[in-house]
Order: sequence, then structure tokens, then C-alpha cells
Amino acid sequence: MNSVISEGGYSLVFNMLSMGIAAMLFTTIFLFMAKDRVLPRYRMAVMISATVTGIAAYHYFRMFESFEHAYGPDAIEGYVYNVGYRYVDWFLTVPLLLVETVAVLGLARAMQTSLLVRLVPAAALMIGLGYPGDAQLDIMGIPPSVWGLLSTIPFLYILYVLFVELGKSLERQSAAVQRKVKELRLLLLATWGVYPIAFIANMNAVGFEESSFVLRETGYTIADILAKCLFGLVIFTIARIKSMEDDAEFAKHEVRD
Amino acid sequence: MNSVISEGGYSLVFNMLSMGIAAMLFTTIFLFMAKDRVLPRYRMAVMISATVTGIAAYHYFRMFESFEHAYGPDAIEGYVYNVGYRYVDWFLTVPLLLVETVAVLGLARAMQTSLLVRLVPAAALMIGLGYPGDAQLDIMGIPPSVWGLLSTIPFLYILYVLFVELGKSLERQSAAVQRKVKELRLLLLATWGVYPIAFIANMNAVGFEESSFVLRETGYTIADILAKCLFGLVIFTIARIKSMEDDAEFAKHEVRD
Repeated sequence: MNSVISEGGYSLVFNMLSMGIAAMLFTTIFLFMAKDRVLPRYRMAVMISATVTGIAAYHYFRMFESFEHAYGPDAIEGYVYNVGYRYVDWFLTVPLLLVETVAVLGLARAMQTSLLVRLVPAAALMIGLGYPGDAQLDIMGIPPSVWGLLSTIPFLYILYVLFVELGKSLERQSAAVQRKVKELRLLLLATWGVYPIAFIANMNAVGFEESSFVLRETGYTIADILAKCLFGLVIFTIARIKSMEDDAEFAKHEVRD
Repeated sequence: MNSVISEGGYSLVFNMLSMGIAAMLFTTIFLFMAKDRVLPRYRMAVMISATVTGIAAYHYFRMFESFEHAYGPDAIEGYVYNVGYRYVDWFLTVPLLLVETVAVLGLARAMQTSLLVRLVPAAALMIGLGYPGDAQLDIMGIPPSVWGLLSTIPFLYILYVLFVELGKSLERQSAAVQRKVKELRLLLLATWGVYPIAFIANMNAVGFEESSFVLRETGYTIADILAKCLFGLVIFTIARIKSMEDDAEFAKHEVRD
């Protein structure tokens, strides 16, 4: 059976998913085109940012299609909207988001490795534990809310690494870069904070409750656009600032005094 | 129920939307290819212009599809043309249009930031307030015309910033650039002025009146092509002029005397 969705709710989620496609796709194209506006040493971070939004663009196309199959004018009888797309997307992109954050700082290789070997597995674990809860799967008799709770443990560990461990290595950066990295962390905290809220909103839906579904999809989409597109553009800005700090000749070409 | 549309009206909107796709898509490709014909310091403005028309190209594809679902030979029973695409498009592109305008001038960083922190939120507010009016939504019991009226407040503020505040910083530009920037502002005023007219045309339609719908879609499309494609090409021209003014060697490579 297809769950019922109101016209307003349908329209809102539909337009949000379409905005997701547009935002992700054109951030990707922009970042790939703009990568030469930073020094070679920072281009990897920009290209990883573009890869993240590119992967997300693909998944937003799929989610849009899945949403249409479930609730559109030509809905398929018995089709269920696939929340799995979001988790596959996050499983691939969230570790990459942490890689781009570390990569743009141009840290010593040992420091970079030490941060990534802790951040990347923690991110994968966080997403992996969240999925059974959000998809309302009954695995090993563990209730959905417990999966949600378990996934906050790696989330808190990631925050610890970013705010405490990474904080120590920020001292060697310029004031302008420090300010931007702090903005980046706050953006991460604010946007990642939306996911558990949307997750909990969905928890309240016993079976299916339209407002919870609409709230979850809207929340996830706004959070995704901020956490990937805006985040990627801040990464690009940091790469620009650091490029100009590193190389006066480059700075002269890139901005007019 | 699908509203009825005459053969002439259908044909006009259909061809306008298709022209929108062609104009947006190829302005995007042209600008991305042509970005190396300006100095690195002006490329960001050209790339943002290409991003704007790219986002619009995506939305014109979607609108074309939505129009076909609503009025085409294979129209879907009960499907309503989604005006939301235009608003999502403007929500993303109008702030970017203002960013490209400021970016191409190569102003001092502080001046640039000061202009953008006022222009970008005002643009987002303008679009956000316009949507409930145009979609004829009844939100908090506020009638559509009032939403339209409210959205003119940030519109007037944007004009004030562009004509008064930005005007002051134009004095340091060459005569040729000043002339082009004035053209740019007039283009903006003339094309943005079409939107409220098309909005009002639609207001008159109680429920659905075909002429109003056709007028609105035609007006929005013409205004969009001028405000994004022509606007982006004028931005490119300014970037060319400034590049040659800045660097005689570059000028020698780019034009034959």
C-alpha cells in the first residue's frame, strides 16, 4: 500500500528534492571548474568537495524518481520510498567530507594520517548504525531508537577529534584561516545536528505519519545542501585564502589590489 | 482537474520554455568555455554567471516537462503545473546574480563583503516572500497580493544598494567600465521589473484564467533570458574590458589592433 500524502506535503518535498539536485549538481560543476583558482597543493581538497556534491547529485536524482514512484501522479501501487539512497549517499560522502576538511589545512603528513584513520572509520560506523533505525528495520530484535542512539557514539567521537584534536593544529594557521575553519566546524555542528532531529521526527511516526515524513525529508535536504554545498564552498574559500598567503605572485594574479 | 488552455496559448508557452532551455544551456557552455578569455582575477565572476544560467537550464527542462504533464497531448489527469520550479530557481540564482555583479568589479575585499552581506539575504527574502503569492497559497490567512507587496520591500532595498551604495564605488572605474555597469543596472531594473508585472497578471486570474497564465509564463521566460543570459554576457564583456585595461600584454594577445 502507498501511504497517503497531502498536496502541500507532496509539493514541498518534491520542490526540496529538485532544489537538492540543482544545488548539488551546480556546486559540483562550479568546484571542478574553479579548482585552478587555488594552488595545486589545495586542489585535491576542492576536487574531493566536488566529488561529494557530485555523488549527492546522483542520489538526489534517484530520490526524486523514488519519491515520484511513491507519491507522484503516476504512483506505482505498493511502491515504498527508498530511504536507503540517503544512507548509501552518506556512507560514501560523510567520510569524504572529513577528508576534504583535513586536506584543505595542508597539515604535516603524519598529523593528517593520524586524524583520518580515526575520522573516516568513525564516520562510516555512524552512518552504518543509523540506517537500521531510520529504515525501521528489525535487526537482531534491536529497536530503531537504539540504533539511532548507538550511531551518536561515533558522532560524538568525530566532534571530539574535530574540536579538540584538530583545534591543537590550528594554532599554526593564520588568523583568517583559523576564523574560516571555526566557521566550518560550526557549520558542521549545526547541519549534522539536523540529522538526529529529522531522525527523531521520523521515529514518532508509528507506521506512517505524513507530517513526520515531510519534516524528515525537508530537514535532511536542507541539512544536506548546507553540509555539502555550503561546506564545499567554505573549503574552496579556505583553499583560496591559503593559496594567496602561500604565494604572493599567485595572489597578484587572482585579486586586484 | 486540468485547466483548459487554447492551442495558441499552449504553443506559445511551449515554444517559450524550449527557447529558455536553449538560451540557458548554451550561455552556460559558452561562458564556461570563454572564461579563459579574461584574466584569472575576473574568472570567478564569469564562472558564477555560467552557474546561474546552468541552474536555470536545469529548471527550464523541469518546467517544460511539468508543462507537458499539465497541458500536453499526454496530460496527466489532475496534474497541476509546478510554479515552484521558478521560485527554487530564483532562490538559488538571484543571490548569485548579485554576487557576479559585485565580483566582476574587482572591489576591495571589505567593500565587496559589505555589499554582499546586504544584497544576498535581501534577494533570498524577496524570492521567499514572493512564492506564497504566486502559488496562491493561503498561509496564515495572508492574501496572495500582500505577499507580493511584502516582497517588493527587499526589492527596493536591493535597488537602493545597487544604485546608491555601489554607485559610490564606481568612481574608481574607467569610463568604459562605468558605462557598462550602468547598462548592467538598467538591464537589471528593466528585467526585474517584468516579474512583478507578470505576478500581477497572474493575480487577476481568479482560479484560472488562461490569458493570465500564458502572460505570466511568457513574461517570466523573456525576463529570465534577459536577466540571466544577456546579463551574464554583459558581465563577461565587463570582465574582458577590465582584463585588457589591467594588462597590456593580455590585451595584445586578445585583440588585433
